[in-house]
Amino acid sequence: MEIVPVLLKEGKKVIDLSADYRIEDTQVYKKWYSKDHTDINNIKKAVYGLPELYKDKIKNASLIANPGCYPTAAILALAPLFKNKLAKPEFIIIDAKSGITGAGRKPDLSSVYSDFNENLKAYKINQHQHMPEIEEVLSNISGKKVEINFVPHLIPMDRGILETIYLKTDTKVNVIDLLKLCKEFYKQSPFVRINDEGKFPEIKDVLNTNFCDIGIKIDSQKSLVIIVAAIDNLVKGAAGQAVQNMNIMCGFPEGEALL
Amino acid sequence: MEIVPVLLKEGKKVIDLSADYRIEDTQVYKKWYSKDHTDINNIKKAVYGLPELYKDKIKNASLIANPGCYPTAAILALAPLFKNKLAKPEFIIIDAKSGITGAGRKPDLSSVYSDFNENLKAYKINQHQHMPEIEEVLSNISGKKVEINFVPHLIPMDRGILETIYLKTDTKVNVIDLLKLCKEFYKQSPFVRINDEGKFPEIKDVLNTNFCDIGIKIDSQKSLVIIVAAIDNLVKGAAGQAVQNMNIMCGFPEGEALL
Amino acid sequence: MEIVPVLLKEGKKVIDLSADYRIEDTQVYKKWYSKDHTDINNIKKAVYGLPELYKDKIKNASLIANPGCYPTAAILALAPLFKNKLAKPEFIIIDAKSGITGAGRKPDLSSVYSDFNENLKAYKINQHQHMPEIEEVLSNISGKKVEINFVPHLIPMDRGILETIYLKTDTKVNVIDLLKLCKEFYKQSPFVRINDEGKFPEIKDVLNTNFCDIGIKIDSQKSLVIIVAAIDNLVKGAAGQAVQNMNIMCGFPEGEALL
Amino acid sequence: MEIVPVLLKEGKKVIDLSADYRIEDTQVYKKWYSKDHTDINNIKKAVYGLPELYKDKIKNASLIANPGCYPTAAILALAPLFKNKLAKPEFIIIDAKSGITGAGRKPDLSSVYSDFNENLKAYKINQHQHMPEIEEVLSNISGKKVEINFVPHLIPMDRGILETIYLKTDTKVNVIDLLKLCKEFYKQSPFVRINDEGKFPEIKDVLNTNFCDIGIKIDSQKSLVIIVAAIDNLVKGAAGQAVQNMNIMCGFPEGEALL
Repeated sequence: MEIVPVLLKEGKKVIDLSADYRIEDTQVYKKWYSKDHTDINNIKKAVYGLPELYKDKIKNASLIANPGCYPTAAILALAPLFKNKLAKPEFIIIDAKSGITGAGRKPDLSSVYSDFNENLKAYKINQHQHMPEIEEVLSNISGKKVEINFVPHLIPMDRGILETIYLKTDTKVNVIDLLKLCKEFYKQSPFVRINDEGKFPEIKDVLNTNFCDIGIKIDSQKSLVIIVAAIDNLVKGAAGQAVQNMNIMCGFPEGEALL
Repeated sequence: MEIVPVLLKEGKKVIDLSADYRIEDTQVYKKWYSKDHTDINNIKKAVYGLPELYKDKIKNASLIANPGCYPTAAILALAPLFKNKLAKPEFIIIDAKSGITGAGRKPDLSSVYSDFNENLKAYKINQHQHMPEIEEVLSNISGKKVEINFVPHLIPMDRGILETIYLKTDTKVNVIDLLKLCKEFYKQSPFVRINDEGKFPEIKDVLNTNFCDIGIKIDSQKSLVIIVAAIDNLVKGAAGQAVQNMNIMCGFPEGEALL
Repeated sequence: MEIVPVLLKEGKKVIDLSADYRIEDTQVYKKWYSKDHTDINNIKKAVYGLPELYKDKIKNASLIANPGCYPTAAILALAPLFKNKLAKPEFIIIDAKSGITGAGRKPDLSSVYSDFNENLKAYKINQHQHMPEIEEVLSNISGKKVEINFVPHLIPMDRGILETIYLKTDTKVNVIDLLKLCKEFYKQSPFVRINDEGKFPEIKDVLNTNFCDIGIKIDSQKSLVIIVAAIDNLVKGAAGQAVQNMNIMCGFPEGEALL
Repeated sequence: MEIVPVLLKEGKKVIDLSADYRIEDTQVYKKWYSKDHTDINNIKKAVYGLPELYKDKIKNASLIANPGCYPTAAILALAPLFKNKLAKPEFIIIDAKSGITGAGRKPDLSSVYSDFNENLKAYKINQHQHMPEIEEVLSNISGKKVEINFVPHLIPMDRGILETIYLKTDTKVNVIDLLKLCKEFYKQSPFVRINDEGKFPEIKDVLNTNFCDIGIKIDSQKSLVIIVAAIDNLVKGAAGQAVQNMNIMCGFPEGEALL
């Protein structure tokens, strides 16, 4: 938010990979990022850069808030259900697993090899700063306030995010219909692939690519839907999505330079 | 179940690491293990070898059904809550993560290095054969039928299991009291360690040891309890627990030869 | 050698990734691959598909013997020295380290995850079938019989080969001049990069690319040259090099479709 | 060297895991560790704590210089050959591979997970500070000045060192006799295991133990000996060896508390 207003004034288009323009409510921003927002005016101009939901707005945007890595997978997995009133908004559990690059690269003890190798840990349990971002977008889609539970874990691998999502439905939807509905929902979205029934994505399905792969299982007796979504956090979860947004903003083919 | 009756007839004490004597109901056994049980008589003699719950029975048992790896962590995490009527039996989600040794070692393509390294996958979603074992023991503790949801994942590391467990409570219990209750519950159990508030176990806390470490968080507004439990699947989840059972059966100190 | 003659008869151009056409001497082939060669006539037609040495021949070839992974790095590292009579042919040590994909993917116990993870081993010490391939090419370049010592190791990572090569020189060459000579040698070769003095390649410099990176150190008092060469065994060491050869054979830009 | 003289004055026995008392020549120390030695008097008192060579001296020592990790494996592999005049002192190549803990744990970018995972690199090529330590001990054994070449590499695993050592011999020794000679040399040393012919150690043979395992191959036509030696750098390469030394100094069984 220090640099963006300067660039916008110069008439540049900006794709911001930080979290500064993702949260509409500055109070929420302050709570989760522990600082005041210093460029409130431009928040309204910012378009949330998830092309699968907001392609039309992105085309004409001057400022893109490029989504966080965890929210990208979570929102893509849940959007078709909330759009179609299939998920109870008061009950969502997202158990997320990320490669170590998800934790950044800092000159301290926070990413020491032997602390992560042959190890596995949960962190920021229901306290991760990506929670309000997911809740805001899903609430907008749903028209109701959505509240999620979110537990991220660090996995001993370089890159990749897998999210296992548990939600309740009160509709008697079966998995064939739900998969069909999702495929329909994403038929204009070349980077979302809905797996066939009984197949669930793994990290290597999407590694080094811009794809988000999604598999779904329904336990109808328990009214439980289980969704598995996978992305590469460094591509669809960050720089690849930024390129996808740039392509859309500049009128290039959406997949240009992306695998 | 081929060898056990022979050994028992010879007057030997047996600790069985297979699943053959873990399930009381032979119909359930057949459903999940796809074969008929051929030694039904001895099932009733078998004691479920989780010393933290059944130490007295183990002392005098001639046949121990050594618990599965996933059930060991899940049951130890949930037993204090079910014993104290703090968990709603109709809603339990266990998101489990295991090192690759959890999948066994077979001369086929099922454990090829490059299929698991830098990868992460869910498998047997709500279809894993350890589910009825967990449900049976928890139902016995609870006095009501417990049904769980269980999604195991394979993590690129040799060994270790971390389970993140989500459950609903209808009591207004706070985390301090719940941790205290758990510590009390396990005060005679040298291999269960309850973490202090705000601290959650990671795999390296228990690697190469017979410990099960447990951390708990409560979101009281959502009546949600989140438990993280960690074991080494090759020690507390298998051979170490067998040694612990042997120690108890033979009158040795419970922790003899265990780290 | 079963399929290649059929394809050649049909007038197809063939790039063979097996070892069948890499070894000129069929006795040597039989010794190292434990079978008789059944297509001797076509061996003479085959061009060894290392574009950095044989680009002109590759252009007009109908049959390419695509090099082995270890030989690619070893020959590219040593060719400039043998071409310029700077290496003693009777003393070459190649200590090679490869990711696990180098060992193939078979339905047996030979690539079980936990046998390789957190492990490291030497194998086929001075008995690897890539030795005669390296010796043949280097002897051809040198004009003298070159004999190497070759110890491959398996490293717990998916892909990549790093070779640390030790050789004696009897010329008083300094490292600056040798690096210059190598850069000159490869000036037409877009996929070989000679590092500057004091810099040595690591696997991540070449991962997922078709590059071979090379660094050199000279201990002049000991007349010892140490070369470190890195490739991705699945790209420059196999399929990528095949694409590079195809590009040259078909008149496409040499780097088309390669990173 | 700040603390040791204080402890010695108080009559304590000291096992020092730093390098301060390993090098006899203070000029050599200064050159490799970039500082002046400030406790020269005690250097002479120090016994190099490799029990397999110096057990008698260790028994009565008040100050032990606990060996470095790389030197432990290198010296144990080479000592029997130098003792028996089987190795040419002017030609030794040690190609060493170490897990990441070998590089220490510092609050900077030097041990970031993703810089090492799926990577492999050589470092300090013929410039590692463990070289003079190896040369000094081998020269003492040999009675002649021994000069080594030493190239360490970092391997994506937590712990373990594997050294592949190449040396020339001018004696016509065969591998059976050499293995016998080594077994004889170490017959009083419970933590050195000489492999049978054709078998070479891997890291998992020694992981979490105090063993040093050694395998040998001879190419008699080339008068070349290849030795593979493996240790766990955190046990036999550091703390385990310190415990072994303490046991000897205190009159405990040499293997007490060691695996």
